[in-house]
Amino acid sequence: MGKERLAAFSDGVLAIFITIMVLEFKVPSGVELSALRPLWTEFLSYVLSFLYIGIYWNNHHHMFAVTERVNGRILWANMHLLFWLSLIPITTNWMGVSHFAPAPTAVYGATLLAAAIAYWLLQSAIIKDQGSESLLAAAIGTDIKGKISPIIYLTAMIFAFFYPWVAGGLYTLAALMWLIPDPRIERFMEEMPSG
Amino acid sequence: MGKERLAAFSDGVLAIFITIMVLEFKVPSGVELSALRPLWTEFLSYVLSFLYIGIYWNNHHHMFAVTERVNGRILWANMHLLFWLSLIPITTNWMGVSHFAPAPTAVYGATLLAAAIAYWLLQSAIIKDQGSESLLAAAIGTDIKGKISPIIYLTAMIFAFFYPWVAGGLYTLAALMWLIPDPRIERFMEEMPSG
Amino acid sequence: MGKERLAAFSDGVLAIFITIMVLEFKVPSGVELSALRPLWTEFLSYVLSFLYIGIYWNNHHHMFAVTERVNGRILWANMHLLFWLSLIPITTNWMGVSHFAPAPTAVYGATLLAAAIAYWLLQSAIIKDQGSESLLAAAIGTDIKGKISPIIYLTAMIFAFFYPWVAGGLYTLAALMWLIPDPRIERFMEEMPSG
Amino acid sequence: MGKERLAAFSDGVLAIFITIMVLEFKVPSGVELSALRPLWTEFLSYVLSFLYIGIYWNNHHHMFAVTERVNGRILWANMHLLFWLSLIPITTNWMGVSHFAPAPTAVYGATLLAAAIAYWLLQSAIIKDQGSESLLAAAIGTDIKGKISPIIYLTAMIFAFFYPWVAGGLYTLAALMWLIPDPRIERFMEEMPSG
Repeated sequence: MGKERLAAFSDGVLAIFITIMVLEFKVPSGVELSALRPLWTEFLSYVLSFLYIGIYWNNHHHMFAVTERVNGRILWANMHLLFWLSLIPITTNWMGVSHFAPAPTAVYGATLLAAAIAYWLLQSAIIKDQGSESLLAAAIGTDIKGKISPIIYLTAMIFAFFYPWVAGGLYTLAALMWLIPDPRIERFMEEMPSG
Repeated sequence: MGKERLAAFSDGVLAIFITIMVLEFKVPSGVELSALRPLWTEFLSYVLSFLYIGIYWNNHHHMFAVTERVNGRILWANMHLLFWLSLIPITTNWMGVSHFAPAPTAVYGATLLAAAIAYWLLQSAIIKDQGSESLLAAAIGTDIKGKISPIIYLTAMIFAFFYPWVAGGLYTLAALMWLIPDPRIERFMEEMPSG
Repeated sequence: MGKERLAAFSDGVLAIFITIMVLEFKVPSGVELSALRPLWTEFLSYVLSFLYIGIYWNNHHHMFAVTERVNGRILWANMHLLFWLSLIPITTNWMGVSHFAPAPTAVYGATLLAAAIAYWLLQSAIIKDQGSESLLAAAIGTDIKGKISPIIYLTAMIFAFFYPWVAGGLYTLAALMWLIPDPRIERFMEEMPSG
Repeated sequence: MGKERLAAFSDGVLAIFITIMVLEFKVPSGVELSALRPLWTEFLSYVLSFLYIGIYWNNHHHMFAVTERVNGRILWANMHLLFWLSLIPITTNWMGVSHFAPAPTAVYGATLLAAAIAYWLLQSAIIKDQGSESLLAAAIGTDIKGKISPIIYLTAMIFAFFYPWVAGGLYTLAALMWLIPDPRIERFMEEMPSG
C-alpha cells in the first residue's frame, strides 16, 4: 500500500498547487477584451509554473514507477519536496503581479532551486534504500538534467537583479529541457509488463 | 500503474476546478431572498460550467476505460487539456459577473474551443500509440460530436459580439449534445468483464 | 475501473467541499480570546455542514460498497448529487454570517432537500440497473430515514421564516438521525469477505 | 474497498489543509526583498503546521497499513480527527498574523490537543474492533509519544499566556519528537511482504 498512497497523496497536493495558481487570477475589472492586457505577465508566469508542476508530476510518476517500496526517510523526503513546491504558487504570483521585478524573480528562482535540491534528496533516499543496482539507479544513469538545472536556477537568480527577463528566459529554458521525459526510464517502463 | 495514476490525477484536478467555481460565489450582501436575484447570471454560468467539467470527466473516464497504457506524449497531452480546463472557472466567473457581456462571453467560448482541441490531441495521441485497431479507435468511430463541437464554439464566439444570448444558447446546446454518453464506448464497456 | 474511479472522484469533490467551508473562516480581527465570540454562529453552522458532508460521504461509501457496476445514468445521477452538495458551503456560510436569519436558514434547508432528492435519484438509478434482487435493494430495505429526511427539511424551511432556531434544531436532528449508519448494510458488509 | 477509500479520502482532506495554509499567504505588498521581512512569523507558523499535517499523514499512513478493516465507528472517529485538523490552517494563520500573541498561540495549542485526543480515539476504535492481539495493538505498544504529546500541548497552552515563545518552542519540540517514525510499526511493515 505504502507506495501507492504516497503517490496518490503527492498527486493530490500537486493538483491543488495548480489550483491555487488559478485562484490567484482575479476577474478582470472591465468587460472589454482590453481588460485582459495588463494580466499578461500573470498569465505568462502561470503558464511557466503550470509547466513546472507538470514536470514534477511527470518525473515523480516515472520515479515511483521504478520504486519498489517506501520507508520513513522516503516519506519525509517526499514531504520536504512538497513543501518547496507549495511555495511556487505564491512566488509565481508575486513575480507575475510585479511584472518580473528583480526581487520576486530571484525569489522564484530560489524556490525552484530548493525544489530541485529536495527532488535530488528524495531520489537519493530511494536509491540509498534500494541499492545502486536498483531499477531507479540504473534508469537515472548520470542524471545530467538533474545536475544542470540547479546551475541554471542559480545563474538566473543572479541575472534577476540586473536583467530579470534573462532570468525568465533561463527558467523557461530549464522547463523546456525537462519537458522531454527521460528516455532511459521510459524505455525501462516499456519493457516491464505492468508499467 | 501509469494509467490509474494519470486518471486519478486528472480526477483530482477536475474536482478542484468545480470547487474554484464555487469559491467565486460570494455570500449575498443582504439577508433577504431578494439578495439572491442579482446572482442569477453567475448561477447560470456556474451550472453551465459544472456541466462541462462533468462532461469532460465523463468522456475522460470512458476514454481511459478503453486505453491500455500511457506514454510521455499522452501524459503531456493530458496536462495540456487540464491547462485549458483550468481556465474555465475564471472565464465562467467573468462571463457571469459581467451578465454575459460580449467579450467575456467570447473568451469563454475560446476556452471551450481550446479545451476541445486539446481533448482531440489527447485522443489522437492515444490512438497513435495504440493503433487504429485499438479498442479506443473502434469505440470512437467517426467521432461526429468531437467534430461538430469546435464549429459550434466558433459560431458562438462570433455571435457573442452581437447577440451574446445566442452564444449562451449555443454553449448550452453543445453541452446537452455531450450529455448523452457515447453508446459505442458504453456498449464496449458492458461487454468487458471488469469495465 | 468505473466504480472505483467514480468513488474516488466523489471523495475528492467532498473533501474539497469541507475545505471551502474552512476557507470562509476569516482570521479574527483581534488578538484576544473575545475576538472569537462573534464567530460562534459561523462555527456552529460549520460543524453542522461538516456533519452533513460526513454523512453523505459515509452513506455514499456504504452504497458503493454494495454496488456492482456503474453506467452513464449512474455517473450523471452522481454528478447531480455533487452539484447540490457543492452549494452547501456557500449556503452554510450565508446562514452563519447572517446569525441564522430567516431567508438564509430556509435556503440552507432547500439545499439539503435538493441533495436528499438527488441522493434518492442516484440510489434509484443503481437499483434500476442492478435489479430489485440486488445487494443494494436488499440492504436499503424500506429506507425509512431516506423518506423522513425530506419531510424534516420541508418542515424546517417553513419554520425558518418564523422561528429560525427551530429550523436549526430540525437540521441538527436530521443529521443526528443519519449519524447512525444503516445496520442492514453494515451487516451485509461484515458478511462479505472483502467488504 | 473500505479501508482504501477511507485512507484516500483522508489523504485528500489532508492535502487540502496544506493548501489552505498556502492560500492564506498574501502576495507581499512591495517588490523588494525587504517586503518579505514582516511575513516571517507567518512563514514560521506555516512550516510548523506543515510539519504537523505531515506527521498526521505519516502516522495515519502507518496506522492504516496495519489496520485490517474499518467499521462505522472507525469511519466517524476518522471524520472527527479530520474536523480538528481542519481548524489548524485558520489557527495557524491567526497565530502567524498576530506575531505569536498569547490568545492565538493558546488556541493553536487547543487545536493540537483536540487533534491528539481525536487521534487517540481513532486508534482505540481500531484496536477495539481488531482486538488487543491485532497487528496495530502490538505495533503501538506502550504508545509513549501519544501519551506525552497532550501533556506538552497543555503545558504550552498555559505558557502561551505568559511567554508565548516558550509555547512555540514546545510545539516545535513535540513536532520534532514525532518526526521519528515509530520503529516498531516500521519494523512490522518491513517484515510484511506487501507493506
